[in-house]
Amino acid sequence: MSEVFSSEVFLAYSTYSTIVLLKMLLMGPLTGYFRVTRKVFANPEDAKAHGAKDEESKKVYLRTDPYVERVRRCHQNDLENIVPFVGIGLLYALSGPDLNTALMHFRIFVASRIFHSIAYLVPLPQPSRGLSWIVGMGVTFSMAYRVLKAGVHL
Amino acid sequence: MSEVFSSEVFLAYSTYSTIVLLKMLLMGPLTGYFRVTRKVFANPEDAKAHGAKDEESKKVYLRTDPYVERVRRCHQNDLENIVPFVGIGLLYALSGPDLNTALMHFRIFVASRIFHSIAYLVPLPQPSRGLSWIVGMGVTFSMAYRVLKAGVHL
Amino acid sequence: MSEVFSSEVFLAYSTYSTIVLLKMLLMGPLTGYFRVTRKVFANPEDAKAHGAKDEESKKVYLRTDPYVERVRRCHQNDLENIVPFVGIGLLYALSGPDLNTALMHFRIFVASRIFHSIAYLVPLPQPSRGLSWIVGMGVTFSMAYRVLKAGVHL
Repeated sequence: MSEVFSSEVFLAYSTYSTIVLLKMLLMGPLTGYFRVTRKVFANPEDAKAHGAKDEESKKVYLRTDPYVERVRRCHQNDLENIVPFVGIGLLYALSGPDLNTALMHFRIFVASRIFHSIAYLVPLPQPSRGLSWIVGMGVTFSMAYRVLKAGVHL
Repeated sequence: MSEVFSSEVFLAYSTYSTIVLLKMLLMGPLTGYFRVTRKVFANPEDAKAHGAKDEESKKVYLRTDPYVERVRRCHQNDLENIVPFVGIGLLYALSGPDLNTALMHFRIFVASRIFHSIAYLVPLPQPSRGLSWIVGMGVTFSMAYRVLKAGVHL
Repeated sequence: MSEVFSSEVFLAYSTYSTIVLLKMLLMGPLTGYFRVTRKVFANPEDAKAHGAKDEESKKVYLRTDPYVERVRRCHQNDLENIVPFVGIGLLYALSGPDLNTALMHFRIFVASRIFHSIAYLVPLPQPSRGLSWIVGMGVTFSMAYRVLKAGVHL
């Protein structure tokens, strides 16, 4: 096993970034679930595979649905926010932070993103979703500050 | 050169993740190709640059096209699936897996994503695209399981 | 601190990829700014939180706006191009490149992406945006070539 895995901070990064990447990945099957159960498809071949026999019913199934669009926006927000966390978080974990400070960053970020998805999908009234989005971004900015403080080469 | 590059598993990760990231990146020029050849643009300045002389023809070029939208969905699916592979795959490569097991994971993933794009763009009848999507996700989940089994710090 | 941070090339990668990931992350608040100031929302709960008192005004606020869509396309283009840079750039930084060559790659990429966003948001006439997009992709391809040349395991 690589030496980097013997560092507790790196192990914490590995654990939390794996969890949050799997959470993001699962938004795909969730979208698929609502597409299939609500018969809302983007591709004619998908409509055909889920019971559209003729051209008429294909057209009926090729539509948008407010809730499917909501799940897709939630997925997109994950991409926009989790990708910077994973990239900057790796550099942060390698920059030698204090273990407890690092754990605090990782835990707050992952909790904020799980809450964000719940707030988006229920949906909960605002500002619950907006606040969890800002908290997650704040964690990424705080890690970026520490990375740049640990060393810059422009 | 960094020591990590002397590890065969890391070299395999480096090779396959570079290939699959380039494949994803090339979806951009492919979208551009269909936008230009079909005269389907999202921005007025693009329509102007590709021959829309007056306001009337600009409006004609600012439209959506079913095939351009298909290429864009294919690109989006790459983002949703290749990003978690690259992130979790890095941790997996550092977690000290058996070389042959790692190669099997990387090869199946890259093959499944190339097949997924072919199935999306031809398009092939379902469930060919759906199955290749599930196979790719299965690889990422299998790597994530190994990463978490190698060590967790919550 | 990790040994990898004592490498000047890795420090340069860390600096530039942090900057470009933060730049991408900031597209989110920028979209939010235009949504709030123009009263253009995608979710009913957001419309309600920003002053839509009844069902009638909610419907008015739930719309698309050409400039908000432009900001969102700019953000999406960042995701499509910055993610491959960060992934391939990490492997490139670990492959032992010459420091000055690496700095040239990182500087051109980050400059091209900042110019790309300006060209998209002003907007500047084409081909300014198109050229900056191609330059950024060229940097990523050049780094990928170097990664694969440094070692391949298929």
